[in-house]
Amino acid sequence: MKAQIITIGDEILIGQIINSNAAFIGNKLSDVGVEITKSTVVPDEYNAVMNEFKFATENNDLVLVTGGLGPTHDDITKKCIVDFFDTELVENKEVMEDLKTFFVSKGREIIELNKEQAMFPKIARPIRNSRGTAPGILIEKDRKIFVAMPGVPFEMKEMLLSTVVPKLRDMIVEKEKKFTVRKNLLTTGIPESVLYQKLGDINELLGDAKMAFLPSQFGVRIRLTAISESEEKANEMILEVEQKIRSKAGRYIFGKDDDTLEGAIAKILTDRDLKIATAESCTGGLIANRLTNLSGSSKYFERGVVTYSNAAKVELLKVDEDTIMEKGAVSREVAMQMAEGVKAVSGVDIGLSVTGIMGPTGGTDEKPVGLVYIGICDEKVCTAEEFHFGNDRLLNKDRTSQAALEMVRRHLLGIPYGE
Amino acid sequence: MKAQIITIGDEILIGQIINSNAAFIGNKLSDVGVEITKSTVVPDEYNAVMNEFKFATENNDLVLVTGGLGPTHDDITKKCIVDFFDTELVENKEVMEDLKTFFVSKGREIIELNKEQAMFPKIARPIRNSRGTAPGILIEKDRKIFVAMPGVPFEMKEMLLSTVVPKLRDMIVEKEKKFTVRKNLLTTGIPESVLYQKLGDINELLGDAKMAFLPSQFGVRIRLTAISESEEKANEMILEVEQKIRSKAGRYIFGKDDDTLEGAIAKILTDRDLKIATAESCTGGLIANRLTNLSGSSKYFERGVVTYSNAAKVELLKVDEDTIMEKGAVSREVAMQMAEGVKAVSGVDIGLSVTGIMGPTGGTDEKPVGLVYIGICDEKVCTAEEFHFGNDRLLNKDRTSQAALEMVRRHLLGIPYGE
Repeated sequence: MKAQIITIGDEILIGQIINSNAAFIGNKLSDVGVEITKSTVVPDEYNAVMNEFKFATENNDLVLVTGGLGPTHDDITKKCIVDFFDTELVENKEVMEDLKTFFVSKGREIIELNKEQAMFPKIARPIRNSRGTAPGILIEKDRKIFVAMPGVPFEMKEMLLSTVVPKLRDMIVEKEKKFTVRKNLLTTGIPESVLYQKLGDINELLGDAKMAFLPSQFGVRIRLTAISESEEKANEMILEVEQKIRSKAGRYIFGKDDDTLEGAIAKILTDRDLKIATAESCTGGLIANRLTNLSGSSKYFERGVVTYSNAAKVELLKVDEDTIMEKGAVSREVAMQMAEGVKAVSGVDIGLSVTGIMGPTGGTDEKPVGLVYIGICDEKVCTAEEFHFGNDRLLNKDRTSQAALEMVRRHLLGIPYGE
Repeated sequence: MKAQIITIGDEILIGQIINSNAAFIGNKLSDVGVEITKSTVVPDEYNAVMNEFKFATENNDLVLVTGGLGPTHDDITKKCIVDFFDTELVENKEVMEDLKTFFVSKGREIIELNKEQAMFPKIARPIRNSRGTAPGILIEKDRKIFVAMPGVPFEMKEMLLSTVVPKLRDMIVEKEKKFTVRKNLLTTGIPESVLYQKLGDINELLGDAKMAFLPSQFGVRIRLTAISESEEKANEMILEVEQKIRSKAGRYIFGKDDDTLEGAIAKILTDRDLKIATAESCTGGLIANRLTNLSGSSKYFERGVVTYSNAAKVELLKVDEDTIMEKGAVSREVAMQMAEGVKAVSGVDIGLSVTGIMGPTGGTDEKPVGLVYIGICDEKVCTAEEFHFGNDRLLNKDRTSQAALEMVRRHLLGIPYGE
């Protein structure tokens, strides 16, 4: 099934907003085996939209539109759809009921402007919008599918996942007699090239499945795709490859698909009723911030300190002043004392620390920009590892926070650090 | 001048990568008065690329392409350009020299694969790539401009800003006899509707200039655009509007264009040789993280504590246990004690604190999700403000960090808080 994504909106064209909608749609559609042939952004202009509708429907089986469905004057998508499909607007009872329910739930009065939203293309079926007032529009005509959704990501995503994707999956199965199953294995703490090497003969590993490596500062995402005549078979293909990958590089895998490393740690800590505290220098609070991005984080996160100054390291963490003088604030010894210190003063099970030089300035020949020490202590062991990252300050903060969280994960699971 | 942006790459189509390049280009081009008519993403396929080149050149004065310029087999942009413009590849000495210089500077040997990059379309001029090996391609033919740049954002951005944008600005001035000047005023701590009201009669305010409001969780960006026959006149128009806006809502403006609120505070603190320390509960380190995102932050940031537990608030900040029992950890009184505490223990000039309920769970009738208290203390005053944000945890963290930093800015500048 071939598809084109059309995003409508001046604000995307002139770069006020990055087109995350198109990426989200492209990702979810290709997950179920839809082939994206093109993605276009057009302005809020009648002719531009109509021309794009024409091109897209002529060249694809499926057209997915976002944007321009709101109630204001520059929202022209509905008018274009009516003209393009040569249909008319009629009041849709289902939509009107949903609108009333929506406004009642918000304790608000429905106004004329919103009532117009119940005027709906006669040829179309509404896609329920559980998060807003503009329903999606679904049209099936001449064996082609046309879907329009609001541009608000929060509304569009829910609509896509709850209604559009399941429908497309069923249609692809029925028409093309094939199932696509996709799974992402998330790794960190290993460079792409080393991971590749560890996996050995790729053809033997994959069989009929496909694999892609997607590296970022947070690690390498391994994307597996299997296409088969049955869902069961496709799932089996994925499982088989996954097992082979896990047998060769399982220690680097912290999760799948939309998992996060902090989420993986949170689960282990909560399950074991353990608490952690952090002592950060160079990351400036980023690690604590990530650990508290999850609801319920007070169960496992006790406190964090951002000891930027040496005085703070000495006062809050009982780091030895002589050690700082002799070894420097960025040293293995100070990292260990910071981790031990934050564990001791907070009374938690695990103390985690980082100290390093994030750059772009502040490096020396002996201690260059990118040098980082990460320390971790529990009641039994206290250790620190040395890392070398790059020159970009914000990327270095990301990399350091990821390496620190990965040290916690491996520590909890008894996996040794290093490649 | 009408322009189309073409992004080439499967990884963008299937949503592995969000198309930030198109947003960046769209933004910088519209800043100098180019009208973006369309933005498309096409796969790494010969026919798809050729068709898009044809459509784009037929309908625009300028075509900007990114992606597919690397040295590997799926990089087809150069081949498509050669065929589309009916030209041939010849060795370009300038490019070869740049390649040699690049490899020498990295201490690496130039390999065959890279030498091929010096083979360049005869009709084209190279755009120097100071950050990578693939030069940009500039073609002027039939009064149209065609520019191709690498897809690596780091390389593309530099090329665009140093070479392409200045050239386009000059051309627009020469051909269309008009200058576009754009300026963004960054506000925070005031809702869009209130800001709009404060500005009064918009037509009177603007004259011939244009204005757009761009709200986000960090505040409202006011984008001003002036188009005139001379740069001087356009600058004057902007200045005039800016002065009027500042006279009506100047207290909410913390910067312009690419400024950040943390950068604005950093400058004031550094200039005045002041130090700050933070005590965060609900933001979990985000404020400290933002304050340390700037190089040289150790000059003004002494330490931060993330006192998630009540014990940490008592131990690290000397918050009174009875106050926590009586008023609750999320209260004006605790916020003030936290700010006072972190200032006292760290010996800095300014103590900043936040305590609140970020959600989605944990709220009560009396203290709902979104309730936040922010405290600030210096040697003279100690105060706290109450805020009500929404239900989304990560947005609430962003909003709280922004409100806290804005309180610091206003405190430093003697601007009262509140609208």
